[in-house]
Amino acid sequence: MPCNGAKTYLLYKEPMKETSASLKTRSYLDWAATAIPEDPSFCSNHSYGNPSSLHTEGRMAKEALENARERCAKVLGVSPGNLYFTSGGTESNALVLYSILRRKGKPKILFSEIEHPSIRENCKVLKNLGFLSGVMGVEKDGRVTVASLSKTLEKHGDTRFAAIMGVNNETGAIMDIKALVSLIRSARDKNTASNGGHRGPIHFHTDLVQALGKVPIDLIGWDVDSASFSAHKLGGPRGIGLLYLKKTLEPLYTGGEQEGGIRPGTENTSGAIAMADILERRALPGTVTEEREKATERFRYLIGKLKKIDRCSLIPDDREEEDERFSPWILQARFKDVPGAVMVRALDEEGVAVSTGSACSSASPERPVLAAMGIGENARLEGIRISQGWTTTMEDMDALLSGIQKTLSFL
Amino acid sequence: MPCNGAKTYLLYKEPMKETSASLKTRSYLDWAATAIPEDPSFCSNHSYGNPSSLHTEGRMAKEALENARERCAKVLGVSPGNLYFTSGGTESNALVLYSILRRKGKPKILFSEIEHPSIRENCKVLKNLGFLSGVMGVEKDGRVTVASLSKTLEKHGDTRFAAIMGVNNETGAIMDIKALVSLIRSARDKNTASNGGHRGPIHFHTDLVQALGKVPIDLIGWDVDSASFSAHKLGGPRGIGLLYLKKTLEPLYTGGEQEGGIRPGTENTSGAIAMADILERRALPGTVTEEREKATERFRYLIGKLKKIDRCSLIPDDREEEDERFSPWILQARFKDVPGAVMVRALDEEGVAVSTGSACSSASPERPVLAAMGIGENARLEGIRISQGWTTTMEDMDALLSGIQKTLSFL
Repeated sequence: MPCNGAKTYLLYKEPMKETSASLKTRSYLDWAATAIPEDPSFCSNHSYGNPSSLHTEGRMAKEALENARERCAKVLGVSPGNLYFTSGGTESNALVLYSILRRKGKPKILFSEIEHPSIRENCKVLKNLGFLSGVMGVEKDGRVTVASLSKTLEKHGDTRFAAIMGVNNETGAIMDIKALVSLIRSARDKNTASNGGHRGPIHFHTDLVQALGKVPIDLIGWDVDSASFSAHKLGGPRGIGLLYLKKTLEPLYTGGEQEGGIRPGTENTSGAIAMADILERRALPGTVTEEREKATERFRYLIGKLKKIDRCSLIPDDREEEDERFSPWILQARFKDVPGAVMVRALDEEGVAVSTGSACSSASPERPVLAAMGIGENARLEGIRISQGWTTTMEDMDALLSGIQKTLSFL
Repeated sequence: MPCNGAKTYLLYKEPMKETSASLKTRSYLDWAATAIPEDPSFCSNHSYGNPSSLHTEGRMAKEALENARERCAKVLGVSPGNLYFTSGGTESNALVLYSILRRKGKPKILFSEIEHPSIRENCKVLKNLGFLSGVMGVEKDGRVTVASLSKTLEKHGDTRFAAIMGVNNETGAIMDIKALVSLIRSARDKNTASNGGHRGPIHFHTDLVQALGKVPIDLIGWDVDSASFSAHKLGGPRGIGLLYLKKTLEPLYTGGEQEGGIRPGTENTSGAIAMADILERRALPGTVTEEREKATERFRYLIGKLKKIDRCSLIPDDREEEDERFSPWILQARFKDVPGAVMVRALDEEGVAVSTGSACSSASPERPVLAAMGIGENARLEGIRISQGWTTTMEDMDALLSGIQKTLSFL
């Protein structure tokens, strides 16, 4: 475990005896580290101490934090030492990307055209800083394939970093991460042999925010170098996420030595515990298989009905009722002559909440993910995203279909 | 208000009618933006929607978020449009610092030797990236003075960024931010006239994490360009902080366009509301004056008693029972021949929690803040930090004094 608490424990060999209740009889005089919370619910299930503090309050919080990390690691099938708590998926992505700035030279980065803005926009910043990057195109179905990666790698032989997401947040397109990583590893070996060792290792990062709990993931089996996760997409609280790192790296942002120096700032212990809770609730492999089947069932019904609506096209238009290329939790559709923003508003008035693109780019009318799939400008503006969850019902599907029919009848 | 929600509202001119309860009858199909929380307490006081979403759930959350921002702004005496929610003080500091990388040229940065690791360590990273920086020394009392700033400015004429904290987190030293900013502004004017306009404006950043709620602050009156705040130091939850920006800037990390593009990632609405709650509870000017007086009273008693202990020295040793140079919430002291880490452990066993340096650098035996004050290596290692809060009592002072006496009697 690379976190600094390891050193702390050397000073204290006895097991912790205190409980949160017994802390009340103590004199806490370390308010500059963290205050006793005004609202006890902020830390109802752990000590209020700063996990980096050496006293009992701090060590109890550290223990709670590490326990949460172990629980997360168990669900994800990795070692706790490879997991770092962050403030969310966006920060996890940024932490890995910007570590590039601490590496020697100007390592070349590759990213796919369909990445979330927290990868795509930051890659553009890095490009402007002189880290020339290649962009991987996608097939018509919106997926990054082994073929497109292979082509991009040939063109950008000195790539040192590649980012490809697991499940696209606008279309639900599922990438075959295992095959993509395998190509990256073999491309390196091949080049090392034929090019006299000029090609260095490529760091493979994957944003799994829309994959976790929804489709099977296998960090070790896929052999990714890093992966990002968010709690709130699973029904956990905001402000807490995870970063998986196969090997530690030198982050750009430094500061306190929390989270093994990877993510500075006072640790969000209650967020970490909530992350562990929601992972155990939603992301165990058996649960994922079971819930995915239910989601598939609901979307089979919905897609079947949508295909019968004249003015409706799915994006891509060959998406099937049940389609292994796509996550059964996200669907992109469009309605002829109805701008997506208008459909969103009309459905909202009918009591149905859907979106156009991602919430993270709702202020931007551009739809770069759809553009990457070769969808024309007018058609792109008609796209809406329908995404379901664990408590979604068939009644929700019917409410959506009825709202669409009503909207189309007067537009 | 630069946040993207402004555009959203143009689509929806009617006031919001829905309540959280009425949301239950709706069909929520935007789980890819954010899930309905598994635990309702994650958003007990606001809609679970993603504030960047265009539907009712999203707009209600946006409204709650903006309401929280307005409440924070009112307490801080600034405009809501100048406040950005972040994950905490460390991130607020990093956001401002690394925006340097988006500016043209390599602007020279200055920072004081006593800055929190989230400034100091990041300034070192920027130095290694070629952003040459000057370091401001401190007086023996650990304060950055107008004289030391003036000297450093003369030496580093091309400074474009200066970071000086409001209250030091290890010694409680209070900086005269108003005077320091005033010097920076006049230095610029003077140089503009005499050097033919070669000197550009200097961005003045101040870390006010240990100042907020504890000593008076005046963002507008002091004329700072940016300032950082954290909720948990006030008794709020972890994972939420604020960044004040006089003018918007181009951040390094981009991604979603949340928080006016300054801080990407799904907004932590409940954190923002908790930030507003704790600011109203702790940081209104009248409350600060009142609580500071109580804190001063307790420390007057403690310092008086400590001064009578032979082996005890305060850091700096001329700190008075009541001393305007120091925050009455933080005190640094040392005990001859007792390493700070040993004293922390001994006091912990007596039921008293204190620390050595900051929790953010507890893994590091170095004490750069004390070193900057000219404290010798052995003496530095003896330092402990005593910091009090709103519920601290005279009994806590006595418990500490009794623990110290007991420890000294056998060490």
